[in-house]
Amino acid sequence: MRSQSLRTRRSLLDLNDLSGPELEYIFERTAAFEKKLPKRDMLSGIAVLNLFFEHSTRTITSFTLAEKRLGADVISLSPRDTSLAKGETIEDSAITLAAMGVNVIVVRHSEPGFPDRLALAFDGHVINAGDGPRAHPTQALLDIYTLREEFGSLKDRNIAIVGDIVHSRVAHSNIEGLKGLGAHITLVGPPRFLPDSFAGEGVRIERDLDKALPESDAIILLRIQRERFSDGPQSISDEEYVRDYRLDGQRLAKLKEQTIVLHPGPYNRGMELADDVLIYAGWRYAKQVRHGVYVRMALLDFLVNGNRRSR
Amino acid sequence: MRSQSLRTRRSLLDLNDLSGPELEYIFERTAAFEKKLPKRDMLSGIAVLNLFFEHSTRTITSFTLAEKRLGADVISLSPRDTSLAKGETIEDSAITLAAMGVNVIVVRHSEPGFPDRLALAFDGHVINAGDGPRAHPTQALLDIYTLREEFGSLKDRNIAIVGDIVHSRVAHSNIEGLKGLGAHITLVGPPRFLPDSFAGEGVRIERDLDKALPESDAIILLRIQRERFSDGPQSISDEEYVRDYRLDGQRLAKLKEQTIVLHPGPYNRGMELADDVLIYAGWRYAKQVRHGVYVRMALLDFLVNGNRRSR
Amino acid sequence: MRSQSLRTRRSLLDLNDLSGPELEYIFERTAAFEKKLPKRDMLSGIAVLNLFFEHSTRTITSFTLAEKRLGADVISLSPRDTSLAKGETIEDSAITLAAMGVNVIVVRHSEPGFPDRLALAFDGHVINAGDGPRAHPTQALLDIYTLREEFGSLKDRNIAIVGDIVHSRVAHSNIEGLKGLGAHITLVGPPRFLPDSFAGEGVRIERDLDKALPESDAIILLRIQRERFSDGPQSISDEEYVRDYRLDGQRLAKLKEQTIVLHPGPYNRGMELADDVLIYAGWRYAKQVRHGVYVRMALLDFLVNGNRRSR
Repeated sequence: MRSQSLRTRRSLLDLNDLSGPELEYIFERTAAFEKKLPKRDMLSGIAVLNLFFEHSTRTITSFTLAEKRLGADVISLSPRDTSLAKGETIEDSAITLAAMGVNVIVVRHSEPGFPDRLALAFDGHVINAGDGPRAHPTQALLDIYTLREEFGSLKDRNIAIVGDIVHSRVAHSNIEGLKGLGAHITLVGPPRFLPDSFAGEGVRIERDLDKALPESDAIILLRIQRERFSDGPQSISDEEYVRDYRLDGQRLAKLKEQTIVLHPGPYNRGMELADDVLIYAGWRYAKQVRHGVYVRMALLDFLVNGNRRSR
Repeated sequence: MRSQSLRTRRSLLDLNDLSGPELEYIFERTAAFEKKLPKRDMLSGIAVLNLFFEHSTRTITSFTLAEKRLGADVISLSPRDTSLAKGETIEDSAITLAAMGVNVIVVRHSEPGFPDRLALAFDGHVINAGDGPRAHPTQALLDIYTLREEFGSLKDRNIAIVGDIVHSRVAHSNIEGLKGLGAHITLVGPPRFLPDSFAGEGVRIERDLDKALPESDAIILLRIQRERFSDGPQSISDEEYVRDYRLDGQRLAKLKEQTIVLHPGPYNRGMELADDVLIYAGWRYAKQVRHGVYVRMALLDFLVNGNRRSR
Repeated sequence: MRSQSLRTRRSLLDLNDLSGPELEYIFERTAAFEKKLPKRDMLSGIAVLNLFFEHSTRTITSFTLAEKRLGADVISLSPRDTSLAKGETIEDSAITLAAMGVNVIVVRHSEPGFPDRLALAFDGHVINAGDGPRAHPTQALLDIYTLREEFGSLKDRNIAIVGDIVHSRVAHSNIEGLKGLGAHITLVGPPRFLPDSFAGEGVRIERDLDKALPESDAIILLRIQRERFSDGPQSISDEEYVRDYRLDGQRLAKLKEQTIVLHPGPYNRGMELADDVLIYAGWRYAKQVRHGVYVRMALLDFLVNGNRRSR
């Protein structure tokens, strides 16, 4: 039994808000939606507010497409439009928005835990679209969906997550989700991006990318989030990073034949990957992006309408 | 007979653009919409442009929900998107937007009278969503609707408006509207926020909040609009304001049992109100916000489609 | 046969992406749409992204109205919302947006050729809504539509384009389009705005506006784009420009009776035109703006659905 069961049934703040069967249900619906778009009435009369305090192109576009395809009333406010910051607490804003008839808030904010604060006060559904370095659960959902499409079960699969782990909300949400599904996770990166404390049950640390490559079934590359850190004693130069951690043609040659490569985007050509990756047969980026819209449709339907099968 | 009758039938620039019977009609429709949402075709084929030159969350969200629920084509431009300011007059922009097929413009601007200038040139409907400190008629509409729901007639009811009157467009529109409906208005605040000149027929000034409390049927609290003034000789410190004018538990105890408290939002906890107010049985904030969407639906329908009863 | 036929059939980057018969088809559809709005399902299920890196009011409003009237799913991102610039190339963004299911991108950017780069990578339709001083083909489409409505054929008509030619994407696209339809083009302006190199087949240069006026069937005035140039040796003061090139009452009197005047907007009263022009019987600005929405509808339908007649 999870705590906060009422709230977690209504909102997605981090991936562990979803139970195993709930995850299964959402993935089934995703697959069904990919096969055939549903009628545009699943969210009819439902008002969805996209409240992005950080810039976004891909995530807000993906959510908006998902919302419109389900027939929701969509309102998008960007950071500079909002007057939220001026004297009013987010809790009071939540009360206001619920009173107004907003049913779902999709929120991105640089402050870890901001979506949780919103969800505690908001009488409706909150979806975390990224809170600083903490979590980005819909990205993890689409990553896991993409991996499962490839492998079926993730039990005992070796997944390497490479790069700037510590600043990556995607990594945090993925580690959580993949562990729960029985995958073996190898985190790869220099100490600056990957403190030893990240090791744990089902999660090991490997400093040498070249050792991790041959044994991996899937590799999730991460973007170096220069905007989230300052240089420190353990800092690593771009040149060192490229030399030790960039995935390029030489390193691709060390992979098993079926290994696939994922990236949450946006990717920096030349930094975490070389152009070779973009034409590698196992590069799954476009599939991830495509799945993202359908996963978000399935999630919205699940949060608002519940599990239709169980009714 | 009012002057500018043609224009005022088409636009809402200040509350006195609506006659008594028109107000009645809009409130009837509001109540009907709250009971049962209308079909989404009342504004079908109607293009509504939300043109907000000042930041807003609650007002633009409320208008957008109202517009979408009536089936309008909604376009929202925020201050930084627009190129209006560059060399072109607002009058010329109005000509352009009308030629394009925009039917309704909902406008917020820091300059008093800006919506009037727009309305004179625009061949369509203009709704003032706030012009600097001057007017905010849809907020007054929802405040009055909330008061009437509580009291039925407002004739001879005592309404206190407390705080930063001089910088408040909400106060200005409410004074106008409530006077017209026969309420007795007491304005409460220090000289810095409430010059003696505000007194007039049906409107008296009271410097001592504690005297005004026991005789009030309703209290409208206002936000201190620090952004609209600089410190002057009559300035009042936050500490003084809190001591003399903040509504808190002690002051709530002085109210009659049925007294209700309103606030246009966003409210500043600790400044014009203490947390006690938020759990006071007569606190009507959430109702105001809820009514706001339906009042705006009724207004849009009235401006575009006219009084359906009289046809 | 044109080169890049596949791409040009799918996108509109400059006016010469459209053949003569394609232009005819689009204009026929425009006229049909003006007579009777089509059902709102021509773009149903089609996702259109308005990606404006430069400020815009009129163009984005016009496109949005066109898109909504055809039933598209519309997403608009303004420059500050997007994270495109951060480390990701526009080519990679194009891949992402296509994978997501975006079908059409309407793009405005200050960099000439930016829409072309986008179109090369994007598996969908790109419409150039202005790329720096280079091209603005939908403005040219609506200008030409307006001229044809007036004159029928443009063969051997004398069209004067007056003002800041060199910085005007509208001028560039119009010159191209009008030449193709057999019009005689006279470019009028001082050397600073109109280098001698602009002369060519079907295009002559005239420095003296007063000489050009009596022989012109139509005059296209341009806005002085002060934001696009710095003062140089050939610079011209506002006073000189007004004296030599502003269209005012005295100059209007030199026109033939049927001469019409166009302007892409926004116009600067007092600079390129005096208030007299706004009440001149041949002033076609409002018609241009009105046609703009229908031309964009016809274009969107053509790009997405092709020539329905030929199927």
